[in-house]
Amino acid sequence: MNLLTNSFSPWMAGTGSDADIVVSSRIRLARNLKDIPFPHLMDENTANNVTKEIEKAISSRSFKQKFGKTEFFKLVSLAPIERQVLVEKHLISPDHADGHPRRAFACTEDERIALMINEEDHIRLQVLLPGLELRQAYDIANMVDDKLEEKLFYAFSEKYGYLTACPTNTGTGIRASTMLHLPGLTYTNQIPSLLNITAKLGLTVRGLYGEGTKARGDLYQVSNQITLGLTEEEIIENVISVTRQIINQERMAREVLYRENRYALEDELWRSYGILTNARMISSDEAMNLLSKVRLGVELKILPEIERSVFNELIVATAPAYLTNLAQRNLEPAERDRERAKIIREKLKIN
Amino acid sequence: MNLLTNSFSPWMAGTGSDADIVVSSRIRLARNLKDIPFPHLMDENTANNVTKEIEKAISSRSFKQKFGKTEFFKLVSLAPIERQVLVEKHLISPDHADGHPRRAFACTEDERIALMINEEDHIRLQVLLPGLELRQAYDIANMVDDKLEEKLFYAFSEKYGYLTACPTNTGTGIRASTMLHLPGLTYTNQIPSLLNITAKLGLTVRGLYGEGTKARGDLYQVSNQITLGLTEEEIIENVISVTRQIINQERMAREVLYRENRYALEDELWRSYGILTNARMISSDEAMNLLSKVRLGVELKILPEIERSVFNELIVATAPAYLTNLAQRNLEPAERDRERAKIIREKLKIN
Repeated sequence: MNLLTNSFSPWMAGTGSDADIVVSSRIRLARNLKDIPFPHLMDENTANNVTKEIEKAISSRSFKQKFGKTEFFKLVSLAPIERQVLVEKHLISPDHADGHPRRAFACTEDERIALMINEEDHIRLQVLLPGLELRQAYDIANMVDDKLEEKLFYAFSEKYGYLTACPTNTGTGIRASTMLHLPGLTYTNQIPSLLNITAKLGLTVRGLYGEGTKARGDLYQVSNQITLGLTEEEIIENVISVTRQIINQERMAREVLYRENRYALEDELWRSYGILTNARMISSDEAMNLLSKVRLGVELKILPEIERSVFNELIVATAPAYLTNLAQRNLEPAERDRERAKIIREKLKIN
Repeated sequence: MNLLTNSFSPWMAGTGSDADIVVSSRIRLARNLKDIPFPHLMDENTANNVTKEIEKAISSRSFKQKFGKTEFFKLVSLAPIERQVLVEKHLISPDHADGHPRRAFACTEDERIALMINEEDHIRLQVLLPGLELRQAYDIANMVDDKLEEKLFYAFSEKYGYLTACPTNTGTGIRASTMLHLPGLTYTNQIPSLLNITAKLGLTVRGLYGEGTKARGDLYQVSNQITLGLTEEEIIENVISVTRQIINQERMAREVLYRENRYALEDELWRSYGILTNARMISSDEAMNLLSKVRLGVELKILPEIERSVFNELIVATAPAYLTNLAQRNLEPAERDRERAKIIREKLKIN
């Protein structure tokens, strides 16, 4: 499956608004089918019926015409390592990779539109685009949602809105998030105060792979906490507005770093570049850390130009499951570290 | 003075026998003039007379014809930083750079033959050649010694041999030493046992800048301890024989390192190369440490070819006094670290 062996996805393009800081924008909608128990309460038979109904909806000719060809499969049909690759590609959640037989997945060939079936809700629809393009992502999500609703009956209450397994998602069922590269705020120790302020604005900031995970590569995800009591548009505008404020702070932090610490900064960024382009073994953590520095160095025009898409792709291309799956055999950690170093050298090669 | 601004000296050529490990060979003869107090006991007037006599001896037409043009000067005529450059170039001892008015210095234009005048003895004659070429260095030293003796009367006793200020130099007055690059023995922790064994053989092993200094860049100096009771030839053969044994051990250690730890070694050597070719600031200690690794990597053919002379020249070209003197102004430590990084990048540049 191309999905599992190709490390490049369209969200890595490095295009879109404010792409020097915003890696990607994501809209996720939570939907459930009417009169059917939520996934954690349903039996296998019901799960199969839900899966079939949704498969039918996305296999329709009109769906294909509008959004392109889709892949569809049950997650049990994949090896654990392959499921892990989908997590690393931000297409499914870690929970959805747990091997439970009810879980299924669908996505368009271009990976912009992805559906987790029978994760926490019957449907978790995701649209993922490069740069700060939340409105466009929402427009697409809306179209997919409308198209699905032509075939499916959603659980919806006039009073509460869309009903979801977890009450925090009830209402609009929307989560809008942006993935940001924040080395400037990290190195000037401003992340704790950022977390504080965004929490007060009803938003959360998390590390790269979602809830409870540590930020790696200075990549942070900003998303709304509340989905009830606000319209979708209000939620999206709120995330955009806070993201813009963080972008401004990050740009200022980079300026301050450069102005007040130029020589040490240049040295550190060039050394990171020197290590990444020469190392023969590298751990995932070190790679993410150094790639963040090199990306900063390229944005500050201290280092030679490297396309943004290269850095975005390397987030996935250097991840453990992706590397192991690509090798088609079990890799010892040391072998993985060598493969990782090799891929980084190849991708960073400047002609 | 070219001597102070040119970082390259003939002993850095990287030629001669076993030049993969032996950087240079040095013969030093201690001589004193008859019936004149040793330097630490003499007055200024006597010091001036000694200096003049020696200057006359090396300024003779026949001396020039045989050994080439020589520079001659009193050390007080140099700024302290300039004297320090001569120490870094291994042309004078740290003691001789102390600014005492009695001290003088002479060397041939090619820097192979150098004389410290009124250091511990009236004359300390040094011949410095690349590679393991102690016999050739001794032949040259002997010729210079003979030439000087045509004009000077040495303090010599039939019973003890050449008389010297310190009894450990009495007898032949010779010190034969080799400067060795021993990363293999260092990384396999064999230096302590090496020190032990060489001491039992009447030899000492010291760090790069002579007695009491720590080894930097994995460079060690092997030299004889005793000068009395043995002939010059026996002393030299002893140093050559022990040096050869160390060379063999070092080659074995490199083989073991490569065989048993290949991947980690390759990674470390490539990283060192990546840092040195990219860093924008580097301390003297870090530079020496990384240059040692890159040199090892080149010798093991893991890294791209770099001429041996480049590494030898960088020992001097990255030293603090040399860098400061070259800038012709007082450099802050951070500025010096930037200059050092720049010189290293330029010299390691591979076309």
